Amino acid sequence: MKKLTHLLCLLLLIYFQARSQDNKADDANIPKGVPASTNIRGAKYPLILPNHHVMFRLKAPDAQKVQIDLVKKYDMIKGDDGFWSVTTDSVGEGFHYYSLIIDGIATADPASESFYGMGRMASGIEIPFAGGDYYAEKDVPHGDIRIRTYYSTVTKSWRQVYIYTPPGYDATTSEKYPVLYILHGGGEDERGWATQGKTDMILDNLIAEKKAKPMLVVMPDANLGGGFGEEGLKAFQQEMKQSIIPFIEKNYRTKNTAGNRALAGLSMGGLNTLYTGVYNTDLFSYLGVFSSGWILPVQSGIANTQYDFMKQNSTKINNDLRLFWLSEGGKEDIAYKNGQVMLAKLDELKIKHSYYEYPGGHTWPVWRNDLYNFAPLLFK
Amino acid sequence: MKKLTHLLCLLLLIYFQARSQDNKADDANIPKGVPASTNIRGAKYPLILPNHHVMFRLKAPDAQKVQIDLVKKYDMIKGDDGFWSVTTDSVGEGFHYYSLIIDGIATADPASESFYGMGRMASGIEIPFAGGDYYAEKDVPHGDIRIRTYYSTVTKSWRQVYIYTPPGYDATTSEKYPVLYILHGGGEDERGWATQGKTDMILDNLIAEKKAKPMLVVMPDANLGGGFGEEGLKAFQQEMKQSIIPFIEKNYRTKNTAGNRALAGLSMGGLNTLYTGVYNTDLFSYLGVFSSGWILPVQSGIANTQYDFMKQNSTKINNDLRLFWLSEGGKEDIAYKNGQVMLAKLDELKIKHSYYEYPGGHTWPVWRNDLYNFAPLLFK
Repeated sequence: MKKLTHLLCLLLLIYFQARSQDNKADDANIPKGVPASTNIRGAKYPLILPNHHVMFRLKAPDAQKVQIDLVKKYDMIKGDDGFWSVTTDSVGEGFHYYSLIIDGIATADPASESFYGMGRMASGIEIPFAGGDYYAEKDVPHGDIRIRTYYSTVTKSWRQVYIYTPPGYDATTSEKYPVLYILHGGGEDERGWATQGKTDMILDNLIAEKKAKPMLVVMPDANLGGGFGEEGLKAFQQEMKQSIIPFIEKNYRTKNTAGNRALAGLSMGGLNTLYTGVYNTDLFSYLGVFSSGWILPVQSGIANTQYDFMKQNSTKINNDLRLFWLSEGGKEDIAYKNGQVMLAKLDELKIKHSYYEYPGGHTWPVWRNDLYNFAPLLFK
Repeated sequence: MKKLTHLLCLLLLIYFQARSQDNKADDANIPKGVPASTNIRGAKYPLILPNHHVMFRLKAPDAQKVQIDLVKKYDMIKGDDGFWSVTTDSVGEGFHYYSLIIDGIATADPASESFYGMGRMASGIEIPFAGGDYYAEKDVPHGDIRIRTYYSTVTKSWRQVYIYTPPGYDATTSEKYPVLYILHGGGEDERGWATQGKTDMILDNLIAEKKAKPMLVVMPDANLGGGFGEEGLKAFQQEMKQSIIPFIEKNYRTKNTAGNRALAGLSMGGLNTLYTGVYNTDLFSYLGVFSSGWILPVQSGIANTQYDFMKQNSTKINNDLRLFWLSEGGKEDIAYKNGQVMLAKLDELKIKHSYYEYPGGHTWPVWRNDLYNFAPLLFK
């Protein structure tokens, strides 16, 4: 009997854990709001208040100091009931990483879903956005996000790749599709575009409105070691050419010409796109560099070598590339200045390119918007 | 210049964050071991030592008390350098959830991947296992795990389902497949079988050895509200019949007869399997109930109603079901006693069934092994 009661208690405890924690905090003094869609099921906090202030609340009677780090750090205040709480400034549209800092240790908030970013599993909060219709789940035909393992002949190990296949992919065995290869930023991985980026929703909606061609979107893991040095950039180029592209073209129904391949990436992924893309315009006709640009002065050697290459090959590059699309998240993007230096250099070298800007800084709301604006330009 | 340096520092910091934290702890006094495969990239700890003791190490100079909760709680010891560490007892094969408890708050370890379990994103550690060849990544044809959203006419909301499609699924548009619907436990969701369960590896390997028929494995989210009461069980039954099965059979190439449908689940998912399965033997010819059984006395009303139903319909049930497979994770499984009570009742009612036992308790290593043993019995 004791064992059965134990089982029951454990199961019920597990099931109602998040809910019960939160309900305790449910009283009349708390402003009206909605739980963030990124909360784990049943968790009331983080609670999104009018004007997108966010209220955090957490039981931690034994902690000395608790903070929320949403780029800006907020000190939580301890109440007599052992609950800590804080209400933030108004937070901008869409997805933002955050951390819960407990007595100096940055960790994930147990009330939130976790997302691989900042080099670890971090919390994320989705702020409702009136203009977010383009990434909303709608009653349109939906594609699949596929998780697939492949053996890398470069790393000599099994690696994971996420692949969006568009609606209708399964309906025939004859139709072939162009492919957008899209890369996450530093401290992220192959899950970034699939989860934080809402790639499936953005593409489903664009395709339904006939604003973008049906395409595969391949989201590789660009962490090949070597960091931001040329070694890392070369390793990724090798992985793309030796492992990823051959794997995708062997296992999925793809159109295997440069005109049907695009490469794009954000931040660190933008650097990989610059390196692998510009040196391989016979492989990719479309390049997208989001919130990036060579990091100066550290990467000036890499940058100058590439600018020399561009100078000597400007005709070929301009002929090969149908689109060389660069973007920044406004002046508040930490990559903004590097991007502007690069744009001036491309002008000087007469390398054709487009530039797009959307305010929001070095963040996922900007990159979702980048994908939404970049994808319709592909494979025309 | 200040901004550029800021960018560089931020990117490099992000990139090497985990690595640098861990490398600090790298000294000659630390026993030889291997980082757990569930660590985030670059994290040295948790470190698996010989005989599967696990060493945890974490920098937390300002914390008052730090513990590792691996069912058994271990107090970490603070060193003069601000690092806390502890070495656990020997830990059993395969995947185990754990928590980092910082000054009383149970959270995920920033050095580990997170997994939805225990009603929140929890840490998990994969312990190497000599007998784990059946879920190892091998050079065999691989299927895909697909993430798909569907609109539930029951919850009136968009929900997510994970679907394993076997190798070769994309090669034709003519071949149709049987389907195993498999359910997670309490505090888990549709990601459980795909991630913790290694469903893709287990099926890829079984299919390659021709030990299991190529099949789809559908991993729904069984959290429909209502908990362990009949309301929750009924809601899941409705979701399966009204939303999930019709969605799968409309969107994937499935054989749509009872003989080509199996339903299985672990713990809470086993209860859903009992309820939805036994009352719908015209829909499913194969049932798998892993580490489960009606929870007595709380569910005795539900159990007695079902036993009465079985008594009145034993001929039909025995004719309809080709397999009614029950299992427990040995006597140490918290569901063991409930399971034994149910087995005796099935004997009494002359309901045909099979029983399988594998030691390891109420844990994922047991459920992986269950899938490995159950899948080959299906769709013969």
